[in-house]
Amino acid sequence: MIQRLHDLLDGSYEEMVSIRRYLHQHPELSFQETQTAAFIAEYYKKHGIEHRTNVGGNGVIAKVTGSKPGKTVALRADFDALPIQDEKEVHYKSSVPGVMHACGHDGHTATLLLLAKNLNELKDDLEGEYIFIHQHAEEYAPGGAKPMIEAGCLDGVDVIFGTHLWATAPTGTVQYALGPLMAAADRFEITIQGQGGHGAQPHKTRDAIVVGSQLVMALQQIVSRRLNPIDSAVITVGSFVADNAFNVIADKAKIIGTVRTFKEDVRSFISEEMERIVKGTCLAADCTYEYQYFQGYPAVIPHVEETKFLIESTESVKEVLITEEIAPDMTGEDFSYYLQNVKGTFFFTGARPKNEHTYPHHHPLFDIDEKAMLIAAKILGTAAVTYHNKKQSSKKVNESLLQ
Amino acid sequence: MIQRLHDLLDGSYEEMVSIRRYLHQHPELSFQETQTAAFIAEYYKKHGIEHRTNVGGNGVIAKVTGSKPGKTVALRADFDALPIQDEKEVHYKSSVPGVMHACGHDGHTATLLLLAKNLNELKDDLEGEYIFIHQHAEEYAPGGAKPMIEAGCLDGVDVIFGTHLWATAPTGTVQYALGPLMAAADRFEITIQGQGGHGAQPHKTRDAIVVGSQLVMALQQIVSRRLNPIDSAVITVGSFVADNAFNVIADKAKIIGTVRTFKEDVRSFISEEMERIVKGTCLAADCTYEYQYFQGYPAVIPHVEETKFLIESTESVKEVLITEEIAPDMTGEDFSYYLQNVKGTFFFTGARPKNEHTYPHHHPLFDIDEKAMLIAAKILGTAAVTYHNKKQSSKKVNESLLQ
Amino acid sequence: MIQRLHDLLDGSYEEMVSIRRYLHQHPELSFQETQTAAFIAEYYKKHGIEHRTNVGGNGVIAKVTGSKPGKTVALRADFDALPIQDEKEVHYKSSVPGVMHACGHDGHTATLLLLAKNLNELKDDLEGEYIFIHQHAEEYAPGGAKPMIEAGCLDGVDVIFGTHLWATAPTGTVQYALGPLMAAADRFEITIQGQGGHGAQPHKTRDAIVVGSQLVMALQQIVSRRLNPIDSAVITVGSFVADNAFNVIADKAKIIGTVRTFKEDVRSFISEEMERIVKGTCLAADCTYEYQYFQGYPAVIPHVEETKFLIESTESVKEVLITEEIAPDMTGEDFSYYLQNVKGTFFFTGARPKNEHTYPHHHPLFDIDEKAMLIAAKILGTAAVTYHNKKQSSKKVNESLLQ
Amino acid sequence: MIQRLHDLLDGSYEEMVSIRRYLHQHPELSFQETQTAAFIAEYYKKHGIEHRTNVGGNGVIAKVTGSKPGKTVALRADFDALPIQDEKEVHYKSSVPGVMHACGHDGHTATLLLLAKNLNELKDDLEGEYIFIHQHAEEYAPGGAKPMIEAGCLDGVDVIFGTHLWATAPTGTVQYALGPLMAAADRFEITIQGQGGHGAQPHKTRDAIVVGSQLVMALQQIVSRRLNPIDSAVITVGSFVADNAFNVIADKAKIIGTVRTFKEDVRSFISEEMERIVKGTCLAADCTYEYQYFQGYPAVIPHVEETKFLIESTESVKEVLITEEIAPDMTGEDFSYYLQNVKGTFFFTGARPKNEHTYPHHHPLFDIDEKAMLIAAKILGTAAVTYHNKKQSSKKVNESLLQ
Repeated sequence: MIQRLHDLLDGSYEEMVSIRRYLHQHPELSFQETQTAAFIAEYYKKHGIEHRTNVGGNGVIAKVTGSKPGKTVALRADFDALPIQDEKEVHYKSSVPGVMHACGHDGHTATLLLLAKNLNELKDDLEGEYIFIHQHAEEYAPGGAKPMIEAGCLDGVDVIFGTHLWATAPTGTVQYALGPLMAAADRFEITIQGQGGHGAQPHKTRDAIVVGSQLVMALQQIVSRRLNPIDSAVITVGSFVADNAFNVIADKAKIIGTVRTFKEDVRSFISEEMERIVKGTCLAADCTYEYQYFQGYPAVIPHVEETKFLIESTESVKEVLITEEIAPDMTGEDFSYYLQNVKGTFFFTGARPKNEHTYPHHHPLFDIDEKAMLIAAKILGTAAVTYHNKKQSSKKVNESLLQ
Repeated sequence: MIQRLHDLLDGSYEEMVSIRRYLHQHPELSFQETQTAAFIAEYYKKHGIEHRTNVGGNGVIAKVTGSKPGKTVALRADFDALPIQDEKEVHYKSSVPGVMHACGHDGHTATLLLLAKNLNELKDDLEGEYIFIHQHAEEYAPGGAKPMIEAGCLDGVDVIFGTHLWATAPTGTVQYALGPLMAAADRFEITIQGQGGHGAQPHKTRDAIVVGSQLVMALQQIVSRRLNPIDSAVITVGSFVADNAFNVIADKAKIIGTVRTFKEDVRSFISEEMERIVKGTCLAADCTYEYQYFQGYPAVIPHVEETKFLIESTESVKEVLITEEIAPDMTGEDFSYYLQNVKGTFFFTGARPKNEHTYPHHHPLFDIDEKAMLIAAKILGTAAVTYHNKKQSSKKVNESLLQ
Repeated sequence: MIQRLHDLLDGSYEEMVSIRRYLHQHPELSFQETQTAAFIAEYYKKHGIEHRTNVGGNGVIAKVTGSKPGKTVALRADFDALPIQDEKEVHYKSSVPGVMHACGHDGHTATLLLLAKNLNELKDDLEGEYIFIHQHAEEYAPGGAKPMIEAGCLDGVDVIFGTHLWATAPTGTVQYALGPLMAAADRFEITIQGQGGHGAQPHKTRDAIVVGSQLVMALQQIVSRRLNPIDSAVITVGSFVADNAFNVIADKAKIIGTVRTFKEDVRSFISEEMERIVKGTCLAADCTYEYQYFQGYPAVIPHVEETKFLIESTESVKEVLITEEIAPDMTGEDFSYYLQNVKGTFFFTGARPKNEHTYPHHHPLFDIDEKAMLIAAKILGTAAVTYHNKKQSSKKVNESLLQ
Repeated sequence: MIQRLHDLLDGSYEEMVSIRRYLHQHPELSFQETQTAAFIAEYYKKHGIEHRTNVGGNGVIAKVTGSKPGKTVALRADFDALPIQDEKEVHYKSSVPGVMHACGHDGHTATLLLLAKNLNELKDDLEGEYIFIHQHAEEYAPGGAKPMIEAGCLDGVDVIFGTHLWATAPTGTVQYALGPLMAAADRFEITIQGQGGHGAQPHKTRDAIVVGSQLVMALQQIVSRRLNPIDSAVITVGSFVADNAFNVIADKAKIIGTVRTFKEDVRSFISEEMERIVKGTCLAADCTYEYQYFQGYPAVIPHVEETKFLIESTESVKEVLITEEIAPDMTGEDFSYYLQNVKGTFFFTGARPKNEHTYPHHHPLFDIDEKAMLIAAKILGTAAVTYHNKKQSSKKVNESLLQ
């Protein structure tokens, strides 16, 4: 069965590339990706695969049902693009000014469409059900995952698998984590409200720049002194603005930044400690403040058993040369929401273009090695069709200590 | 003699007001005040008083020579206006949109013109020489005083007196200082150059916001720990700008501010200490920097003997009700340059409009009590004509300790 | 009269020196100076001068009443010594191990005793009353001035004069201030109570050293940003102790220091701002604190009119070569309490030993030029006997702006 | 074979306990443990096992040689005690005042002795060679591991296994790490040399307390901003001492602390960054400094393959109920040196006393569940005798990313 699936996918590679390039030429921004959604739906329609559109927005889900009983396995691909100008010189370059698939979501979509088409062809020999989740709006919080889940895309699902084509890892590599894979990425905004005045008369003012500077220094202690050293976290003040004439004392300082964490308790602890520090610093300086903390996507925390299962599944994929456990990446993904609802895993499929300089994701010259799509399809497909037979681990393993 | 001068000035008050109002309606910005200069020259020409134009720019100087030998006494009035829209509802309101005599220089000019005219009438009975310095461009550094001095306006001068009509003190008050009267007002610009990057990857960056904040904190120590507590100084960071997206680490922070001091050694010490602190802070953080320190006008430091002499002179001016020694004002004036070259003093002549709300200097509703011009003329005139007889103080007084 | 007094004092110089040296050999610590008090009382008894002992402690006051009506003038000398080992090689060296007149109070006492004796001889020609206040315990807060005042030593007194023999100024110099002469010297103690723990587990602790360091940095802002730049003040943390093993996180940091000010409002403002900053800093760090502020002596603020009067009085003292207004000294004196209750002034009488290295007050090699005692006696005596005829200044002078 | 070993060990349990208790009663401090070394040597002598004494100090090594060829496997137990007063009420309580086996090294020694004795009995059926390393002085840097290695204890060794009886984990648990298990624990000392002076005269000084406080704040940035957020590290200032009178400005501040890290590059980076920050901070403040960084033991980093092998070995040990991967502990161990020289692993054997309150290691009431010794012996023995057959992993695994 696995071999048949791999063979079918090998035969679909050309179509996969073709679809990916079509999508690459026609990118759409998050929450506006109606044409892409229509394209996906049309594809399923053409192949007679049951599907539903407008799921939680522009989301599309399709279903293939095997002839035998089994688990319900979901696979997810996102399909929105970014507000970046494509600067590559290739014939499949974006045709939309200022919009570009600079993160590989076009490849994700092509991968999933062909995998669905081929599983559909094999359905008489398959166990269980297969849900293909085509998610809109991954790039822009609050994202598409949450509304699609609320719209029922995970109903009845036992497990979910997803991957990101990863241009910074060589093709043939699969990267995974037994702990968190990607971080929660939050945003904060602090306004220090002092009292302005003439630069020569500090005693009649409350200098918001001094207070803001003190605050920036004090915030360092959260990571350096208040967190468990084993826990990773970043608190970055990205913007500090108090823009006045040279001889004026600032009445206001605006401080904006981001917090990255891997654990919910660390995340909420930081948010609370930040407010405590803002409050105390402003009390000490007789200033007032506004403090806002906006939660972005939670951390992507793959389930350990499913991750190990997936990595074992790659043994049958001959193109996979290396599997490596990696330290978590500080960037974010709304795949986290799926993993909060059902078991599953998320991993990176190496997609570094050969013989070329590698451009990072979100770069105007970003591109992928398209062969990686085929590898991703094989891994996801293999894991999906064999998940029904997965054994439970026998000895009790205490996972909690590592989280 | 003094009484005759006072009587003549009393008789000139109407003309003084008339001239002041004419100038108030026709304000000119610093370094562009050609019509005002022409008006002044025309006045001297009309009264047959020797004068010179284009002194160090738009400056005008006139001379009245007494019949008897004596000292050479200079009197100074500035005549430029400000880029402020006059919002007063008076018939002599500024006729030039966005330009206004919002600091009283119109009054200074009227005062000096009438004083010159009357001293000219008395010249047969006067000792010494009288130089009337009409200075352009006081409001805008590097100012008109310096080029006028370079053009020789103080050549042969023994002493100089000047006053500022002071709307925040009541008419009838004379304010003086036996130490500094007004501050040196300088400007600095610091750019911290770190290395930017992704907000989640601090280890690949040098966070200019953290370094800038640390610098702001460290600068506080100059005033709190490194200066003699007896010396007054202000170091204000008025602007702190590192304006990035929330999830970016700042590569650069721009910090701009002002330094106010009363002593040259304190001034240069601060400038050096600031650079030392910037240098050390950036070394500690592996960043580079640009540091620039721009000197504005020096502090106005009246000479003690001449100040005491002037204050004694006010005893004959019946309109002077109160003389008060004041703590120095942190604002600046280029009268400082004259006092660096010759003996003399500078003082404030109370000019608060009666029965009205007082608007500070540089305010769109600023005005003066015109009676103050008459008082200023009498004080300056009295000091000028009696300076020739000033006694030297007998007992040695050590002034240096107070500076 | 003045000449007669000066002549009498000239004739008493030998006795003055003799008494001073006797006292120098027999110093007593603050609040323990019973033998010195007895010596003083005995002197008055011997000369038949009315006196009272045990005034507010070891204090002694004597009174000389003139034959004519007049003001009541008080003159003060303190008589306690310091816990310092005398290391001078002179025959009048201290005979008490570890105790020494290292501040000149022996000279103050000799000066006042001889002045009293001579005024007593002149009493038939004197106006008014003369109160001689011999104060114990100036060196050790809360000091002797306060209890002596409470015991009535200023009752009926119109004016008080006092001087300090000043070894750092040359003999023949008189130093005075028209503003504050000496500072208020206070003490504060702050204990930051965090939570200790293992040096490798910051997240289980509240690191008192980090919080204490942050506090020290924040305290700098009071002087640099919250005070009027015209006002002088010092906040010094003299001691920071958190003494633990290298691998322990501090549970407690003890911070002790001093505050120096010249104005009561600045003094109380600083005390309040310090507490605000301690409170806010500890709130930000989730620590608790103890904060104590102990007021030492207030600033010595001579009354301007009396100061000017005293300086004019020095004109008749031929040994006075220079009178100089000085910037205030940051050290303290409990003469401040007298000046809070009655008019008067305090000044420094230059007493630098000739042809020798000068040792500062409180130094084991400290000594004075004894000639200064004679000068001090003449100045105090002259001011005292002529105060009755002091004219009131005619023109209103606004003194408040300088304080 | 494994079963025979386990049976033999079961039969030796009584002797194991007896030896452990004997050692518990006769503890010796690090580098002074001659009697314990003699006891160990005597035991080997009694059982006719080849051994060597005075290896790198008080160290003892023994050797058992199997009849068949194979690998050379080392097993290590440390045997020094701590300067702690035993406060337990048990009959085997320490008989030496102030010295106690409060870390379980007595149990390590008993475990290894019985394991050696039993392997010796089985030697005719064993492959390879077995080296029993009895190490002195683990508790006190620079420790005994280094000199024993220099003395050749690892010569010819292929692999080393070691364990720590771990009272904070329940008996039956085995804790391991695929990354670092224990931290490098270093020490630093910084002296800020400013210039002292009178508390009222900051301008004549360089205030070491302010500079030290600024330094403490600046050091926070190393962990918060300069390290990869994925890397764990602790920088603790444990001691800050500048102990002066309240009215003195500190000339010196002494700052002492510890650094904990898991990677050599992070460790050396921190040491360098600290010096850079000290240097820059002192430059900014015109102070000098001394900076010393003392390296303690490196991090204990078990080899991943050997760790996985050992954990698999535990499957045959019926008493092992749970194996759990743990987050690294911030404490240190000189087992790190062995792992820098040969392959191997180190793990924790749960030894929590049943039905009692658990006291942490180094506590005066510390004790272990002696059953844990038997479990440790079985795990170490099993791993040792089966290591010869260990398969190499087939697929390339990139371990480096996790370190």
